[in-house]
Amino acid sequence: MGGVENGVTLERPRVLIVGGGFGGLYAARAFRHSAARVTVVDRENHHLFQPLLYQAATATLAPTDITAPIRWLLRRQENTEVLMAEVERIDVARRVAVADGGALTIPYDYLILAAGARHSYFGHPDWETAAPGLKSIEDAIRIRQRVLLAFERAEKAARDDERRRLLTFIIVGGGPTGVEMAGMLPTIARDTLSGDFRRIDTRRARVVLVEGGPRLLAAYPDDLSEAARRSLEALGVEVRLDTRVTHVARGVVEAGGERLEAATIIWAAGNEASPLGASLGVPLDRVGRVIVNADLSIPGHPEVFVVGDQAAMTSRGKPVPGVAPAAIQSGPVAAANVKRLIAGKPTRPFRYLDKGDLATIGRYKAVARFGRLHVSGALAWWLWLFIHIMYLAGFRNRASVLVEWGYAFFTYQRGSRLIATRDRPGAAAHGV
Amino acid sequence: MGGVENGVTLERPRVLIVGGGFGGLYAARAFRHSAARVTVVDRENHHLFQPLLYQAATATLAPTDITAPIRWLLRRQENTEVLMAEVERIDVARRVAVADGGALTIPYDYLILAAGARHSYFGHPDWETAAPGLKSIEDAIRIRQRVLLAFERAEKAARDDERRRLLTFIIVGGGPTGVEMAGMLPTIARDTLSGDFRRIDTRRARVVLVEGGPRLLAAYPDDLSEAARRSLEALGVEVRLDTRVTHVARGVVEAGGERLEAATIIWAAGNEASPLGASLGVPLDRVGRVIVNADLSIPGHPEVFVVGDQAAMTSRGKPVPGVAPAAIQSGPVAAANVKRLIAGKPTRPFRYLDKGDLATIGRYKAVARFGRLHVSGALAWWLWLFIHIMYLAGFRNRASVLVEWGYAFFTYQRGSRLIATRDRPGAAAHGV
Repeated sequence: MGGVENGVTLERPRVLIVGGGFGGLYAARAFRHSAARVTVVDRENHHLFQPLLYQAATATLAPTDITAPIRWLLRRQENTEVLMAEVERIDVARRVAVADGGALTIPYDYLILAAGARHSYFGHPDWETAAPGLKSIEDAIRIRQRVLLAFERAEKAARDDERRRLLTFIIVGGGPTGVEMAGMLPTIARDTLSGDFRRIDTRRARVVLVEGGPRLLAAYPDDLSEAARRSLEALGVEVRLDTRVTHVARGVVEAGGERLEAATIIWAAGNEASPLGASLGVPLDRVGRVIVNADLSIPGHPEVFVVGDQAAMTSRGKPVPGVAPAAIQSGPVAAANVKRLIAGKPTRPFRYLDKGDLATIGRYKAVARFGRLHVSGALAWWLWLFIHIMYLAGFRNRASVLVEWGYAFFTYQRGSRLIATRDRPGAAAHGV
Repeated sequence: MGGVENGVTLERPRVLIVGGGFGGLYAARAFRHSAARVTVVDRENHHLFQPLLYQAATATLAPTDITAPIRWLLRRQENTEVLMAEVERIDVARRVAVADGGALTIPYDYLILAAGARHSYFGHPDWETAAPGLKSIEDAIRIRQRVLLAFERAEKAARDDERRRLLTFIIVGGGPTGVEMAGMLPTIARDTLSGDFRRIDTRRARVVLVEGGPRLLAAYPDDLSEAARRSLEALGVEVRLDTRVTHVARGVVEAGGERLEAATIIWAAGNEASPLGASLGVPLDRVGRVIVNADLSIPGHPEVFVVGDQAAMTSRGKPVPGVAPAAIQSGPVAAANVKRLIAGKPTRPFRYLDKGDLATIGRYKAVARFGRLHVSGALAWWLWLFIHIMYLAGFRNRASVLVEWGYAFFTYQRGSRLIATRDRPGAAAHGV
């Protein structure tokens, strides 16, 4: 163990942070003036700005616009190193993380787990190939390729029924991800692509959003759910509420007694935390999240913390939602508690500051809640833009980010429409 | 057949252009005021600005910076459509192109083949997996991923010999592609990456450039070859001239009696034209290029033209080199000849205007020849910059291109370092 004892400075304490997303990155940044030695491990080399992931998936932004190498973001922290490795389990007794099939073991004095969550298929993992989800940049590239190829194939299609199927897009899940994807698809079909094709009318693309519950954006207030639905329908999206998906196969979705054929099916439903939490040997909630104490540590191991989407956190007696601000806030709180432990002080509980909800609908509208204030339409969209620029700019020069993002958003449509691998049957659907 | 006969306007003539690279794209643009119906077919969805491909491969530019959808570039030409399909053979007797495994047949009245060329492995196609080439954006992404992963693995490496192997990069082929790649690798290792790693010193990366002949840039004047070699050696590159590669396997290159171990081997040698030319049934040259007449048509079929890297063209009695300006010039000449045939006029021969040679060495130097004028060093680099901006801007607003490219070149280093797929054994090595 590192730290100060009886006035004698021992070896510097080692802090291991697993995950370079919002939780892990903001936690790491909190150590920048610390004497601790910090190691950040992620199986990807990049930090991903997830709120804009749906734009990469709909060819509006390029993947490089919303990612940055983790080691570049932390380059100025001399006490911090970054390793690209896949942590498979945590040995809490020996205080080591085991990665890369056992090839790499990383000892720690303090651990912050921020490995996130992904979508889930309600017990049908075999649906994933037919209906890819949207959690990583790889997912976004795959979806973008499928969407663009659907239009390319439709342009070549010899038969009407084939063309209709190719121009039908189904999105499963009416949460923010599904709603944002559903809003962008008709937007790019109409604004971006319509002049570029000769044989097909891209505006005739059919987008169907399927949601099992009675409302879109279930976590939002009723009036904003309704505003979102109306805005989507104004864009031509067919919204199916109270419609549970019963079967998914390649090109087919069965839901609410209806059989829908579509070349492109996108999964934006369900939630399950990283399996890494299971290796801690402590209770998990229904979706696999680690149930943490008020100070974000786990029962029986005050030196181990879990934050962000991977944790089931409670604040002021209420569960904390799995949203970006929660990850951004909990990371530094866990880091502060680690620093208190190092200094021999008591830890403090996490107090979540609910900054509201925000989802875009198409290119120029959004729905937003800030405290009790509900906003929808174009005004909400400008608020969304401002907030995301401020968050993106946490690491970068604000003016340059604004220019770059603005330019990317309004003009890179063309550049982000790259399909980088050829449409070979069975080939991994990767694009850039 | 289309055209005007006895004062009666027949059906509009159909022009098929195979390939959306420099040759095909510039040929298509030449038809913008024509009455012909033009179809451009490419197996990719994008046009690639190849001169900057080595920058995408060395994580200096993002792939989306140097590509644009072909159908977007041609969107304003009402008479022109774009299909994404792979043409497998041409039936010159029936005047159809057969694509997508026979699923698509495209009839034509006039054909312009611009399917380009790729690198070759001197009769060892099995070397390709171990030593990928650089011709497409997919290639650039694959190389970039290997380069970035090599540094990531080196950071994790437990043993010195493993680290050395991971930090060794071999490039085979001392033409412009190899020289440009060889110049960029130490540049990114030193300028871009060096502050981001803790356990390795990226400046100790070893770059070896292997060339079978006595000079780098064999097509350039002697003094420029020498300037290139000196500049590369000043960057720390080990240049091996008169060194033929005898064997390539995963992680190993045997050349000139030496055995070199490197995690990353890049192939930038050899040349072979698209196999599509073989289906024309006319003589090909040693590297598979179609030997064309002075007006770029093929023997026996005045309605079929071949341009760019896929053609063995002659101008003023001298062979035309397989360089970008030759493709850019020959495309419109073939198009002009098609228009003359439609109007019942005689065709004209292709006159190649040799605009010189240009290759960069690292980030701030270049070697260039313009006519008899030889330039090297920083001045040549600025000329290179100017020329590429002007060419890139052929389709786009110049000011925005300059801003975008400049920003990309100087700052996107971070953005273009994205590895989009996880490093799984056997997985396709794709990154963004």
